[in-house]
Amino acid sequence: MAEKLVGNDDNAARHVAVDRLAAFTDGVFAIGITLLSLEVAVPVVESAASKGDLVAALADQWPSYVAYTVTFFIIGAYWINHHRMFNLLRGVNHTFLVLNIFALMAIAIIPFPNALLAEYVLNPNLRGVAAVVYGLAMFALALMFNVVWQSAFRMRLMKPEADPLEIRKVLKSYLIGPIAYASAVVIALFSPMVSLVIYALLPIGYLFEGPVGRIEAGYVVTGVEDG
Amino acid sequence: MAEKLVGNDDNAARHVAVDRLAAFTDGVFAIGITLLSLEVAVPVVESAASKGDLVAALADQWPSYVAYTVTFFIIGAYWINHHRMFNLLRGVNHTFLVLNIFALMAIAIIPFPNALLAEYVLNPNLRGVAAVVYGLAMFALALMFNVVWQSAFRMRLMKPEADPLEIRKVLKSYLIGPIAYASAVVIALFSPMVSLVIYALLPIGYLFEGPVGRIEAGYVVTGVEDG
Amino acid sequence: MAEKLVGNDDNAARHVAVDRLAAFTDGVFAIGITLLSLEVAVPVVESAASKGDLVAALADQWPSYVAYTVTFFIIGAYWINHHRMFNLLRGVNHTFLVLNIFALMAIAIIPFPNALLAEYVLNPNLRGVAAVVYGLAMFALALMFNVVWQSAFRMRLMKPEADPLEIRKVLKSYLIGPIAYASAVVIALFSPMVSLVIYALLPIGYLFEGPVGRIEAGYVVTGVEDG
Amino acid sequence: MAEKLVGNDDNAARHVAVDRLAAFTDGVFAIGITLLSLEVAVPVVESAASKGDLVAALADQWPSYVAYTVTFFIIGAYWINHHRMFNLLRGVNHTFLVLNIFALMAIAIIPFPNALLAEYVLNPNLRGVAAVVYGLAMFALALMFNVVWQSAFRMRLMKPEADPLEIRKVLKSYLIGPIAYASAVVIALFSPMVSLVIYALLPIGYLFEGPVGRIEAGYVVTGVEDG
Repeated sequence: MAEKLVGNDDNAARHVAVDRLAAFTDGVFAIGITLLSLEVAVPVVESAASKGDLVAALADQWPSYVAYTVTFFIIGAYWINHHRMFNLLRGVNHTFLVLNIFALMAIAIIPFPNALLAEYVLNPNLRGVAAVVYGLAMFALALMFNVVWQSAFRMRLMKPEADPLEIRKVLKSYLIGPIAYASAVVIALFSPMVSLVIYALLPIGYLFEGPVGRIEAGYVVTGVEDG
Repeated sequence: MAEKLVGNDDNAARHVAVDRLAAFTDGVFAIGITLLSLEVAVPVVESAASKGDLVAALADQWPSYVAYTVTFFIIGAYWINHHRMFNLLRGVNHTFLVLNIFALMAIAIIPFPNALLAEYVLNPNLRGVAAVVYGLAMFALALMFNVVWQSAFRMRLMKPEADPLEIRKVLKSYLIGPIAYASAVVIALFSPMVSLVIYALLPIGYLFEGPVGRIEAGYVVTGVEDG
Repeated sequence: MAEKLVGNDDNAARHVAVDRLAAFTDGVFAIGITLLSLEVAVPVVESAASKGDLVAALADQWPSYVAYTVTFFIIGAYWINHHRMFNLLRGVNHTFLVLNIFALMAIAIIPFPNALLAEYVLNPNLRGVAAVVYGLAMFALALMFNVVWQSAFRMRLMKPEADPLEIRKVLKSYLIGPIAYASAVVIALFSPMVSLVIYALLPIGYLFEGPVGRIEAGYVVTGVEDG
Repeated sequence: MAEKLVGNDDNAARHVAVDRLAAFTDGVFAIGITLLSLEVAVPVVESAASKGDLVAALADQWPSYVAYTVTFFIIGAYWINHHRMFNLLRGVNHTFLVLNIFALMAIAIIPFPNALLAEYVLNPNLRGVAAVVYGLAMFALALMFNVVWQSAFRMRLMKPEADPLEIRKVLKSYLIGPIAYASAVVIALFSPMVSLVIYALLPIGYLFEGPVGRIEAGYVVTGVEDG
């Protein structure tokens, strides 16, 4: 018997089912990413302090600014990828809905490891613990992202016009995420500083369009060229 | 005389009325669910603390992690159900709009009982009080959810193509929620630990597709099979 | 010469202009309303406290619960009205966009007077000040709501199929808001308790469908009956 | 070879690609703007305080109210402009998605410089530092806004029916933003008070419809007149 999916039957139904899930997912991403700014606090200096004191207090917070920038970019990049894959869906089923909740759980918690890292990164004793927790959170997020989209592919939730070979290639490229963060966690156990450099460098690769960028607008586009 | 509903007349009007209500509702769900992460705080240890101190401080917060996971999943499951039922609506009326506000009130307050439970669950004297409040909040949410959708069904807000017998069956299955949480509250009065186990186990049932999963894409689908 | 509006020309353009403004507006409403829950804090009791101490601490916070319920309902009711009027728009212009920002400013600040009132309502000396500030904030919101929709009507932004006489009647009914809150502020100067009762009772009128409920789905419906 | 863009091919695909990016962007704007209200705190006075004490404490917070109003209006105005330009897009590419993330980063951080300025504006020693940081944040936002839309124009992401000469004129008018805030930062180094007056006055210009207001509904409208 043929499988039946939410939004399988016509475009309007797809709109209702996939687009509302996408909208809810976007909401959690948008809130999670914006809450990162709450970690950047106004430094408290006494009212008789000099200009230099406030400048120094602001400068001392540099880990907060770096954490904000790096983590914001990572969540932003996940959103781009999540939204690209969503465009390929022809419908969703119960399993997909449940897996997506676990992926959102991994997104919404990110402000916590981000704040932990910013708080303890300057403490040579404690930065290792914070780096491990940050890496584990990023690993969980990358893993859930892979679980969601590998499952979607295996449950045949992708549009028929999307090229399975191309999707397989893109899904393979997503495996870099959990592998990289798992490695960074292991490294953090021995050398926190090296792991921090890895955390900061990993998003840079995303700036350049990889195979992922070729999945667009609901089907696989080959030979994409930016104008 | 025929009743008139918001969005009764054509698809475009339904889009405007039901979809905007759905979008606002999704927004409150998305924010409420993401604010749960604010409860997971960065532990404060003195700067001379050892690695082990920070690990211990992080480990001591385990109730926060468990509360986040369980409550996030519960709100996520409510969102899935709410969005399934929304797809069945052919329009809304004033009563529905007002009842939906009370349901959102019950969603948006959840971070409070969640934080209360995480705070006092390790205290043998106080965990009972926190468990009762958590259960009452979940009961109120489950009750409002039932009130909203029972009313929608009775006010004939459902699409004509949706099978009333199937909807009745699904609505009946939703009664499990308020009954389960009311029972858990009573149990919490005598044995907080048992009620906590119930709170943690209840969402697990949701992982498996029940009759609810069969309501999809704006009408009742029978014989759904995941691929 | 004929006026030109955003989204004047066809349904697709209306979708882009009015619906995106509506979505942004919904977002601010949804966040403002959900942030109200942050005011309901977990009470801090010492770890040796008894059950009764925590129950008492929770009970002492009753003004927070009442403020949450009343204010949540008020913002929810404003959202319903805002969304009803949005459905009547055929397009927007620069003036409307700017006025809408000021209305959103009045919505987003509401958690502040709400928290102020909850904090000082039990203090006989200070509750008067808090009641005046709360009333002024509600007055500003009600006023901006009227300014936005009176302007929209006068700038002829409403759909041609919407009956001007009916819209005028509905707009007139909205004047109750600023008048009621302005009166409550004056009363709060003499008798804070009476003004608090007024604040709590005002939303109850909204539970019953008035002339406002008749504006639905993008045009004026006459003779609406709930099923 | 012809360039290929997300959402290039038909209206449905444009809906999926551009509208979902717009929705995510709107979400970050809506949350960033609403979080500004968290800076307006309930003043703490002792329970034996008089009416006058609470009034004075509330009055002493005037920088918070002014900062909220000015910054809210600035973000609101950026949203209006961002949404106007989004309507002109025929599709997006990887570079656009990445640049948009950096623009969102600049939006989401605004509550920080806003709170910093409100905190230190009354301190003659420290207000200069806060004014410089606020100006730098606004400069970064204005700069990113220009980078995003200049890039979109150069990468030919605009709809063919949009008049390039008109777009160029509008883009030129956007250059006022970074120039004005860069100047205000330089001025803040010498005279903080003058820079604060500039910050407060800059948004006022936005109240009047400039060339920007003429870009509407997905193409360039010439000869727009409000009714």
